[in-house]
Amino acid sequence: MNKLTTIAIDAMGGDFGPPVTINGLAKACSKVGNIHANIYGDEKIIAQHINKYSNLGDNTNIFHTNEVVPMDVKPIDALRKIGKESSMWSSIESVSRGESEAVLSAGNTGALMALSKIILKTVSGIERPAITALWPNPEGDTVVLDLGANVDVSPNQLVQFGIMGYAYAVCVLKKDNPKVAILNIGHEDTKGTEDLKIASEKLSSIFKGDYIGFVEGDDLSLGKSDVIITDGFTGNIALKTAEGMAKLLSHYMSTIFKSSLRGKIGMIVAKNAFLSLKDKMDPRGNNGGFFLGLNGLVIKSHGGADATSFAKAIEFSINLARSNISNKIEDLIGENI
Amino acid sequence: MNKLTTIAIDAMGGDFGPPVTINGLAKACSKVGNIHANIYGDEKIIAQHINKYSNLGDNTNIFHTNEVVPMDVKPIDALRKIGKESSMWSSIESVSRGESEAVLSAGNTGALMALSKIILKTVSGIERPAITALWPNPEGDTVVLDLGANVDVSPNQLVQFGIMGYAYAVCVLKKDNPKVAILNIGHEDTKGTEDLKIASEKLSSIFKGDYIGFVEGDDLSLGKSDVIITDGFTGNIALKTAEGMAKLLSHYMSTIFKSSLRGKIGMIVAKNAFLSLKDKMDPRGNNGGFFLGLNGLVIKSHGGADATSFAKAIEFSINLARSNISNKIEDLIGENI
Repeated sequence: MNKLTTIAIDAMGGDFGPPVTINGLAKACSKVGNIHANIYGDEKIIAQHINKYSNLGDNTNIFHTNEVVPMDVKPIDALRKIGKESSMWSSIESVSRGESEAVLSAGNTGALMALSKIILKTVSGIERPAITALWPNPEGDTVVLDLGANVDVSPNQLVQFGIMGYAYAVCVLKKDNPKVAILNIGHEDTKGTEDLKIASEKLSSIFKGDYIGFVEGDDLSLGKSDVIITDGFTGNIALKTAEGMAKLLSHYMSTIFKSSLRGKIGMIVAKNAFLSLKDKMDPRGNNGGFFLGLNGLVIKSHGGADATSFAKAIEFSINLARSNISNKIEDLIGENI
Repeated sequence: MNKLTTIAIDAMGGDFGPPVTINGLAKACSKVGNIHANIYGDEKIIAQHINKYSNLGDNTNIFHTNEVVPMDVKPIDALRKIGKESSMWSSIESVSRGESEAVLSAGNTGALMALSKIILKTVSGIERPAITALWPNPEGDTVVLDLGANVDVSPNQLVQFGIMGYAYAVCVLKKDNPKVAILNIGHEDTKGTEDLKIASEKLSSIFKGDYIGFVEGDDLSLGKSDVIITDGFTGNIALKTAEGMAKLLSHYMSTIFKSSLRGKIGMIVAKNAFLSLKDKMDPRGNNGGFFLGLNGLVIKSHGGADATSFAKAIEFSINLARSNISNKIEDLIGENI
């Protein structure tokens, strides 16, 4: 049986707030046992929603906060103008005080990163935290980072991303010898920028045979490597490009099948297969990006997540909290940096 | 009726050479009238293949060359070790001598770009040519450049890409007032690198209301702008990421529908719809990248193109040759640079 795991939830974050975050919590608790949730936000609204679900109550604590970080505020304003009174700030602080083992928010990504950096600070040896996510491939998932936290990264930071991604693949994906690669515009050693070549040499000396060199954009979806690292500019463009492509193909699917009688009949007959495919094509399916490199686990749900999707992010947070990832990162940094 | 248009074909380029390139030419000639082809490569092999097609003969000239640029050779070696004896070199030279209006090759991209730059040189006012392609969206196509020729680009080069893309959208896509945008990690003016902000200001002063600012990765597939510009590193990653995503979704489609009886029946009933969708998901569908910014039109087919796909690249080359794009680029450069 799993040990009791306590997570902090920023109940006010995301496009919908408590109706989605508390419903998501109820869904997660009915699937995963031994969760305790410290919930931050408007006490009255949160309590109303908690009362709707018979499996919530004793396993929750509500902590009232007066402010909400808006979805469109600049990180600097979230810090200066809203600051410590927000549900986001308080929920992160719960991790820094050791009261929760991870924090989950569907709020403003930039603000969540900025506040997390100030409250939790980066792990010793890591210059900057990275936004990390699992990228689906035919055999499972690839750990990809950075997806948007750092526009410019140095070779050393790329190496640090590699170490964090490796730790994630070992501790959470349970890979024995995960493969690590750098995203580039060709497989050859001669391709790409000088910074990538320097990072490549360093990673090769750290990971030896587990470092497989450069991979290309299509390898993100093809499972060529367990970990793929890149700067936050390129990673963000790649992630959103893939989302756009999935939307385009979903659009093609609807219009092509609805444009003929046989197509429509096929959709009725194979309804479940179409629903599974739509589910696979939904970027919210794999909900839960996480910020690697902080002294504490911070998980970011999509702002537009519904309750099912938010529940997945809660399960993901619990998994992360029950893994040994923070220690593994510290060990690897100690040995290699 | 369209005027007679002469194109040069590097018959030896690509993974398959003459069996595909000559078959593709026959297919294109049966769809599009008034094509004359100057064909470069092994005279004997080419003649054998031409003899197979009743619609080829008078409309072709074969020019024998002794060498082939291998698909995996480095551009510098294509230049130094193989040089002027190759079918690639001779076919490009045919454009520089005014004997052909465009050149098409399915050969090594890096070598084709390197040889094209040396033989044709860039248009006055354009520092570097860009690899350009049409990116499908629900309403049509978006012109995207650079897709891999230039790893580092300056703000001025981005502006030049914007001008070339605009000319393409006007002359080939027949848009009256095409919208131009820069690929970035957010829509806000404050996002991204300093270079992008400088380029953004310059494009805004050139294109006024036709410049719509920054777009994100998903906007590539959503038709938000007629022209989207980026550096060759980011563009190449985005293009290949989209290809990988299409392959992954195609894989999901096969496995999900084949895993249940109802799914299999649905596939049989709606067979044509599935085939159309597969066709839409095939990156070779929109075959034909082109190099913008040279004194001459150079079109690059996918190396792995089959005859149908190569025929599309020929049609594309003919369209380009019949447009007024070269003059339009020169005019816009003259007015704005």
